[in-house]
Amino acid sequence: MSDPIKIAVDAMGGDNAPQANAEGALAAALEAQDVEIHLVGKTEAVKACLPEDLPPNLHLVPAKDVITMEDHPAKSLRRKPEASIAVCGNLLRERKVQAIVSAGNTGAVIAASLFAARLLPGVHRPGIAVAFPSRTGTTVLCDVGANIQMKPIHYLQYAVMASAYCHDVLGVEEPRVGLLNIGTEATKGGSELRAIRTMLEEASEKGCLNFVGAVEGNHIFEGNMDVVVCDGFSGNTILKAAEGTGRVVMEQLTKAVNESIEEFSGTPEVAQAFGSAMEKLKAFTDYSTYGGAPLLGIDGCAIIAHGRSNARAVKHAILVARDFAKREVNAHILQRLEELTTKGAAT
Amino acid sequence: MSDPIKIAVDAMGGDNAPQANAEGALAAALEAQDVEIHLVGKTEAVKACLPEDLPPNLHLVPAKDVITMEDHPAKSLRRKPEASIAVCGNLLRERKVQAIVSAGNTGAVIAASLFAARLLPGVHRPGIAVAFPSRTGTTVLCDVGANIQMKPIHYLQYAVMASAYCHDVLGVEEPRVGLLNIGTEATKGGSELRAIRTMLEEASEKGCLNFVGAVEGNHIFEGNMDVVVCDGFSGNTILKAAEGTGRVVMEQLTKAVNESIEEFSGTPEVAQAFGSAMEKLKAFTDYSTYGGAPLLGIDGCAIIAHGRSNARAVKHAILVARDFAKREVNAHILQRLEELTTKGAAT
Repeated sequence: MSDPIKIAVDAMGGDNAPQANAEGALAAALEAQDVEIHLVGKTEAVKACLPEDLPPNLHLVPAKDVITMEDHPAKSLRRKPEASIAVCGNLLRERKVQAIVSAGNTGAVIAASLFAARLLPGVHRPGIAVAFPSRTGTTVLCDVGANIQMKPIHYLQYAVMASAYCHDVLGVEEPRVGLLNIGTEATKGGSELRAIRTMLEEASEKGCLNFVGAVEGNHIFEGNMDVVVCDGFSGNTILKAAEGTGRVVMEQLTKAVNESIEEFSGTPEVAQAFGSAMEKLKAFTDYSTYGGAPLLGIDGCAIIAHGRSNARAVKHAILVARDFAKREVNAHILQRLEELTTKGAAT
Repeated sequence: MSDPIKIAVDAMGGDNAPQANAEGALAAALEAQDVEIHLVGKTEAVKACLPEDLPPNLHLVPAKDVITMEDHPAKSLRRKPEASIAVCGNLLRERKVQAIVSAGNTGAVIAASLFAARLLPGVHRPGIAVAFPSRTGTTVLCDVGANIQMKPIHYLQYAVMASAYCHDVLGVEEPRVGLLNIGTEATKGGSELRAIRTMLEEASEKGCLNFVGAVEGNHIFEGNMDVVVCDGFSGNTILKAAEGTGRVVMEQLTKAVNESIEEFSGTPEVAQAFGSAMEKLKAFTDYSTYGGAPLLGIDGCAIIAHGRSNARAVKHAILVARDFAKREVNAHILQRLEELTTKGAAT
């Protein structure tokens, strides 16, 4: 058996920490024998969330401090060198782990990751790749907030990096790549987007990626794309708008369902039937099914889990980290970037 | 009784034209005695969708041609001067109507509107304002696609114009205005967004609007804002992403509901209860409840209805046009813009 993948998990980040993080780490350690988890946080608080006897592949690593959602990302890392995410970053920097997972302050996770791991050779900017549920599976959107000052080459690199991730971790043979725009016609979106489109088309013609054209916001969910590249501002607002819509629709649905159940209180089958339908819908909309979002482009692996992560989401994020490291996504990103250069597609 | 509001309705634009447009125009004419509708389109086709006897406030206006969703907006207007939307534009230009309503090619509607009506004095760029359902009512997002080359002054003008619309048409006393960003901290979003934020804060301190700070994509649906200003690229992707999410969630829900109904086929109450709950949810998510989106900033009124508009959506869009004209939104926009200048907030 090969060596296990070593993963540092931030026990203290996120709205449900440390309970959900500890439970998720435990579940991942029990399920995946090929990982070795280092759960980083305030020892007493973390211990209180776990059974006395831990599986042999789950270790506790002390960290005295916590960076909260309100803290300034970069400044707080300097001010709180003993924060759990900083300790995770140190483990990655010292190559004691291959990956880190955190549901904490996204800015701080990015800052810690960039401090711990350089950018891969040739990469201009890192990008966060989020997998969305779609009609037919998942669509990866990149970037969703790491980069709001985009240049055309960033889009091309995101397309290539997200394709590698989508292929290796999500198992899509030849990921179809779309460029976010406000219309699908070639003339849309101004001169910069036209230049980006041309760049993606050229790279596609040279066989470096499978670019299929412009897409609009709704296409992300319709399952006819595997990867959509966009600027971090648009990507972040899409991510949050989709979550917001989903949440409000689910609230309204729950309200309507409860009213119907009350109306038909004499027929217990009604409540049963609703319960079963809601379960299925929740499984579809629950982001915890989709794991965390990798920060693509760094020489290491950092998985950003949702701030609201429950134990299941943390477990899935850990499994994404394992797959990312095990399937050598970074090696494939480097191959693809080199191919861009040798084929003259990245000029 | 005062003169009726004269409205030209494009019978041929949109996915369900001319049937839905004709039915919607008829319903609006019957319901609202204070409108006079000029339904513009291919006479035979439109007549076939309507009863023999029309109400006295519904007139048919012939137009020989149609601009499709695939046509290039500006070019097709020149190439098809007898298209229904071009004829609507002419009626507005000649002041034979006060407002136009179309569910057709958005770019062509904007081009026709700008050709028909100049910008209001002092307005830099027109903006499309869409009303979204939120937890507590509606939130107006502006711009959603008219302007992708934003300057700080555009955000300020959108804030002021959308506030006037929200006040006059949606009945919100002092609309709370938010600025779309990727975080709510003052430091987020780069130097340009900081400059815009400062401009909005100053205008708010001078009493020209009620700016309450930065908002993220999810806040649009949470009901703690009445107006959110953003660049047209982000706004358009939010609009489409929200629609896409809503549609896919509804599909998944319908699938789950049908499975449950089959499972409990021996209990007819189950199907009844689901029917009632789905009705309520559809009323909430149905964009047809929210009418069309005004193109703010022009010296006239143009309401852009959703391309998928059904008769109900067309009717609502016509009623929005009526309210927009009747309540003199443009006069109030001018007042507010002048106030910005006199108070020195628009520099």
